[in-house]
Amino acid sequence: MGNLLVAQSGGPTSVINATVAGVIQANQLNPIYEHVYGGLHGIEGILNEEFVDLTNLPDFSIQLLKQTCASALGSCRYKLKRDNVEDFQKIIAIMDAYNIDTMIYTGGNDSMDTVAALSEYAAEHHITNHRFIGCPKTVDNDLVITDHCPGYASAAKFMVNVAKTTWLDVNVYTRQEVFILETMGRDAGWLAASAVLCGKVDLLVLPEVVFDKEKFLAEVKKCIDAKNKCYIVVSEGARFADGTYLAAGEAKNDGFGHAILGGAGNAVKNMILESGVAKRAKVQDMSTLQRCYSPCQSKTDVEESFRLGMSAHMHSMDPTFTGKMVAVKRPEEGPYNPIFFTVDAKDVANFVKHVPAEWILDDYHGMTQEFYDYCTPLIQGEPDLIMDNGSIAQIEPFYL
Amino acid sequence: MGNLLVAQSGGPTSVINATVAGVIQANQLNPIYEHVYGGLHGIEGILNEEFVDLTNLPDFSIQLLKQTCASALGSCRYKLKRDNVEDFQKIIAIMDAYNIDTMIYTGGNDSMDTVAALSEYAAEHHITNHRFIGCPKTVDNDLVITDHCPGYASAAKFMVNVAKTTWLDVNVYTRQEVFILETMGRDAGWLAASAVLCGKVDLLVLPEVVFDKEKFLAEVKKCIDAKNKCYIVVSEGARFADGTYLAAGEAKNDGFGHAILGGAGNAVKNMILESGVAKRAKVQDMSTLQRCYSPCQSKTDVEESFRLGMSAHMHSMDPTFTGKMVAVKRPEEGPYNPIFFTVDAKDVANFVKHVPAEWILDDYHGMTQEFYDYCTPLIQGEPDLIMDNGSIAQIEPFYL
Repeated sequence: MGNLLVAQSGGPTSVINATVAGVIQANQLNPIYEHVYGGLHGIEGILNEEFVDLTNLPDFSIQLLKQTCASALGSCRYKLKRDNVEDFQKIIAIMDAYNIDTMIYTGGNDSMDTVAALSEYAAEHHITNHRFIGCPKTVDNDLVITDHCPGYASAAKFMVNVAKTTWLDVNVYTRQEVFILETMGRDAGWLAASAVLCGKVDLLVLPEVVFDKEKFLAEVKKCIDAKNKCYIVVSEGARFADGTYLAAGEAKNDGFGHAILGGAGNAVKNMILESGVAKRAKVQDMSTLQRCYSPCQSKTDVEESFRLGMSAHMHSMDPTFTGKMVAVKRPEEGPYNPIFFTVDAKDVANFVKHVPAEWILDDYHGMTQEFYDYCTPLIQGEPDLIMDNGSIAQIEPFYL
Repeated sequence: MGNLLVAQSGGPTSVINATVAGVIQANQLNPIYEHVYGGLHGIEGILNEEFVDLTNLPDFSIQLLKQTCASALGSCRYKLKRDNVEDFQKIIAIMDAYNIDTMIYTGGNDSMDTVAALSEYAAEHHITNHRFIGCPKTVDNDLVITDHCPGYASAAKFMVNVAKTTWLDVNVYTRQEVFILETMGRDAGWLAASAVLCGKVDLLVLPEVVFDKEKFLAEVKKCIDAKNKCYIVVSEGARFADGTYLAAGEAKNDGFGHAILGGAGNAVKNMILESGVAKRAKVQDMSTLQRCYSPCQSKTDVEESFRLGMSAHMHSMDPTFTGKMVAVKRPEEGPYNPIFFTVDAKDVANFVKHVPAEWILDDYHGMTQEFYDYCTPLIQGEPDLIMDNGSIAQIEPFYL
């Protein structure tokens, strides 16, 4: 009987651990592996043989894991390069040494590329006793083929609550107010768009629409003229026609050559104040909190993330199942009732799913009904959280 | 039978409306007033006779009101000046016209000054048929005499959850990380201090302690040397020995001549990076959200706020009861079981309750057990929230 290795990569979400919990519980219900190992800090820790044994994790810990944000196994930004043969050889050797048949890797775009690269390497070298499976997670919701990504729904639910409550806050005075909520979303506006579900967003700025400063300021002015207030949501990835980000001056790079964004809200504030369209503007940059605020988990999201982990474990019973990602599909008609299916990880890696242009209203006026119909079912339900003296209980990370 | 007027002033909290809900429900249970009017936008709207009739607000709306953040009646920053006799005359005339015996005003420091000024004016002019009662609210928790202020506990509870989850987020990678959480707190560090209840804060910077840059950076360095991470919480009101705020460059004034703060987090980040003590630092400025995020209400807080409103209504049965604020006292021993009592509003107005120096650990190391014992009971319990399609239901503001 072989072993299973599960590890996490990329940025945190508030349900990323639910997938790991699903893998662990699936193996407790159907012990096809002798051990379920957790690899610490993704590929980085796997290369250093940093493992914890999760096989017999008690049920209470599994419940805690489901409600704990951010990778409990630790994460990494390490990218396997296809020409770095040593890394591939080392991973295979370590899997051999630990008798690991299957590696399940949760993550976004780059992690699916890792899954694809490892399975390709194994195929090329006729290694048939190791398989590699991806589980999607990202608050950005920008993976193709899958209907949505676990993690997005909880971040979206939080954003709706944030928009609803800050909208009330900003409206209490009679004075003129412009409020700008900045969200994550490097290339895709899914998270920013979710805020419209609060029903109060006046203007929405997405990466999918070229930012036209004059047109935008004219819309702010119309709004201010009509009601002396304007509630704006802007994605960090919004950019001008020449491709530069709104906050171009502040952009830096992360380890993958992706721009580290932020500052779009302040850029919008400055252009509003400089234009004289409004005299006051306040920015709420959601920053780190939007991806990890687990007390606002969507029950739909956490349960899907959990079942997705179970599904990955079950699929791995097929000894030829490798280089795949487990994805989510929703029925075309009837109530929301998602099913899981599999796709080739290489068809997901390095692609970006944008918000469809036909779902975006003109003139920054928000989203069409199609988007409301898409997003609303995802944010339904609140889990019964285990509390710890007034705040959410979170499992102590395994990497500590 | 006379009428009662209730109005709100100052910045939002997530339980400010629970006090109004308590006033309304108290009068439904014991109808000592014919009408309960809500004054819109505090003194500003009262001067314009902008009233809504809340007398028969249905129970479901009262429940919604209890969980709705930010003044549902609207707020104002208008300050009654004692030499502006016209305003006083006008308010008395309007109360006469509407047969209003009692005005209940919720707010912070400045609102208690309004209550004191109105009752003093009435006394000086031998006006005995109008009384003025204050109800405290402020996330800053900086009112004297009262054990704490409704609104603080829910903001504190949110802060603990925020610190707990962002701490997990910032720790997932092996790389060096400095995370800086910036909170409100112009003069008092209560809100910043509450974050320590997550058990993970490394360094805490409060307005009560003169900021010593070299000493602080030495502590950051110790922390980085020990574990390559540092989680810092800084209050916007933190200042240097000469009294200037950390983010002095960005300070402006609000209508009351108070500095509008913010930017302390970035100031700390810049000094850390410039000193070379760490190479990376991220700032989470909680901004508006920390005072209005009602999905994280403390049940203890919302119920106290509600009962405080009921208490104010009951006290007003005494025709000589005026110029008072209803305050909260906790028993010196035994379980947390607060009682309500009254103080002169003038003894609260224009004073600031600081975090006691003896509760603050040296070298930015956080808080003593006394603070944990003080704050922990306040953040207990979660109300059963009425949800609306995946996000918290909030009553439509009366001022719209």
